Amino acid sequence: MSAALTGTPVFDFNQWTARQLGRVEMALSSWVTADSPADLGHPMRYAVLDGGKRLRPLLVLAAAETGSPANPTDTLEAATRAACAVELIHAYSLVHDDMPCMDNDVLRRGKPTVHVQFGEAQALLAGDALQALAFELLVPEDGAVPPMLAAQLCRQLAQAAGVHGMAGGQAIDLASVGLQLTQPQLEHMHSLKTGALLQASVLMGAACGGVTASGLVHLSAYGQHLGLAFQVVDDILDVVADTQTLGKTAGKDAEHEKPTFVSLMGLPAAQSYAAALLDQARAALTASGLPRTHALHALADLVGGRTH
Amino acid sequence: MSAALTGTPVFDFNQWTARQLGRVEMALSSWVTADSPADLGHPMRYAVLDGGKRLRPLLVLAAAETGSPANPTDTLEAATRAACAVELIHAYSLVHDDMPCMDNDVLRRGKPTVHVQFGEAQALLAGDALQALAFELLVPEDGAVPPMLAAQLCRQLAQAAGVHGMAGGQAIDLASVGLQLTQPQLEHMHSLKTGALLQASVLMGAACGGVTASGLVHLSAYGQHLGLAFQVVDDILDVVADTQTLGKTAGKDAEHEKPTFVSLMGLPAAQSYAAALLDQARAALTASGLPRTHALHALADLVGGRTH
Repeated sequence: MSAALTGTPVFDFNQWTARQLGRVEMALSSWVTADSPADLGHPMRYAVLDGGKRLRPLLVLAAAETGSPANPTDTLEAATRAACAVELIHAYSLVHDDMPCMDNDVLRRGKPTVHVQFGEAQALLAGDALQALAFELLVPEDGAVPPMLAAQLCRQLAQAAGVHGMAGGQAIDLASVGLQLTQPQLEHMHSLKTGALLQASVLMGAACGGVTASGLVHLSAYGQHLGLAFQVVDDILDVVADTQTLGKTAGKDAEHEKPTFVSLMGLPAAQSYAAALLDQARAALTASGLPRTHALHALADLVGGRTH
Repeated sequence: MSAALTGTPVFDFNQWTARQLGRVEMALSSWVTADSPADLGHPMRYAVLDGGKRLRPLLVLAAAETGSPANPTDTLEAATRAACAVELIHAYSLVHDDMPCMDNDVLRRGKPTVHVQFGEAQALLAGDALQALAFELLVPEDGAVPPMLAAQLCRQLAQAAGVHGMAGGQAIDLASVGLQLTQPQLEHMHSLKTGALLQASVLMGAACGGVTASGLVHLSAYGQHLGLAFQVVDDILDVVADTQTLGKTAGKDAEHEKPTFVSLMGLPAAQSYAAALLDQARAALTASGLPRTHALHALADLVGGRTH
């Protein structure tokens, strides 16, 4: 029976998420192995498995679905690898960010941070090895990711993770402690620190799905607005949530004298701003004209409603 | 006039090295830019420029010359990028390795180490950003490295840098402090910690040059023997050289109770072992039957005769 006769099936986001998370958790667990020199795989697995909302992998997989690829099986393999690669970059950045010379945080996802559990040297090396593994996942020896796509994914990930992306944003963050930033300065910092990798997640997924150039423009806008909204919500949660709900130390932005959207705008304005950014993200999806954007829509809702 | 009439020109290693180093230093300086968020480019440049023997880049460029590529201009572009990429990985590993939670070293290449000069947080981030940049160099947007080759180079670099390469070797190194290792254990540690990236340098260069599979087997053996010899010589220098000649703190292996080839075998046996390994490296070149191996031969001599 054709889709026209059966009607468009209702999209079940919970079911979709459960299926995608099952795939991602299984892939991460098989690719980040315990079998390793001097047990370095243990802190790597501790940093990556059984924790996290997996927002970035879900963005990759959701964006991949909006394309019309020649070979859906190839797309799924590439998108799963890209999903895990962005998560490894995110996980390594948390490990390094929590270290005493950075944020000096002892709690992450409700567990002791990696350097508390394994020592600083192991945390440093595990983070370094996770970054290398992220790139390794994108270029499998069996050619399961076509070389042209693999090279593109490596480029997108390296740019998002590097000095003009996440690492640069963290440098601004460090240099901004105790300073009063303007809103454009704060947004620039976050567009690099968290925005670059969130946007890369969307665009890497789109690359795996073979989304056309006209679609990419809108997905890029979606990723940009969603990324900023994510950070505004993060700043709000740091103020309104308690440590247990958050799974990491609450109130640490104020304690570290870090500029936030809440300290800059006040809580009600920050809440309105987050909502407006998410509306813009949804509008970009609608304007794209791309099919199968349900999951990306639902992920925007998730970012708006998250409690941790 | 044909080469047959003029005769084979005598290979001038000093001239060759000067030309290659000129290319590498210029490329590194242009790719590791000061223009960066929160001046993160400054510790990155400090870590990379004006220092180091550039052994890894020279190995890449020397190995690339042994191939018979369809397009020598493309080869040179790819090999220059690969040469800089391996050097960035090497440089980031030194930055992280020198940090207080690792070797806690204050002197490197005759200068204060990065964390002493810029602080620990900047050192951590600069190292992270250098690793990302290494991969970025291999996948330029203009397609200057063909995608098939770019994907292969990313794979080789990621494997050499990661948990089953350099990072894993450093984990073994950390776990071995104060232990009495056997010679096979010590060799395994070094084959990962320094050997993997040295061997990858040779094989990435060979990939750029389009060396055939039969040639690769011998170049792989060359890289393996050279890599181990490099470490044996390093252990010897730590005992016999002074800090000024070395440009880094001498005698630190003994101070840190690290197992070395000298502590295991004694000085004379370690010196003989280094010489024997270099002979094996040279024999592999001869057995390869590859053309233009002069530079790789000369680099083996350099490793044997180096004073720092």
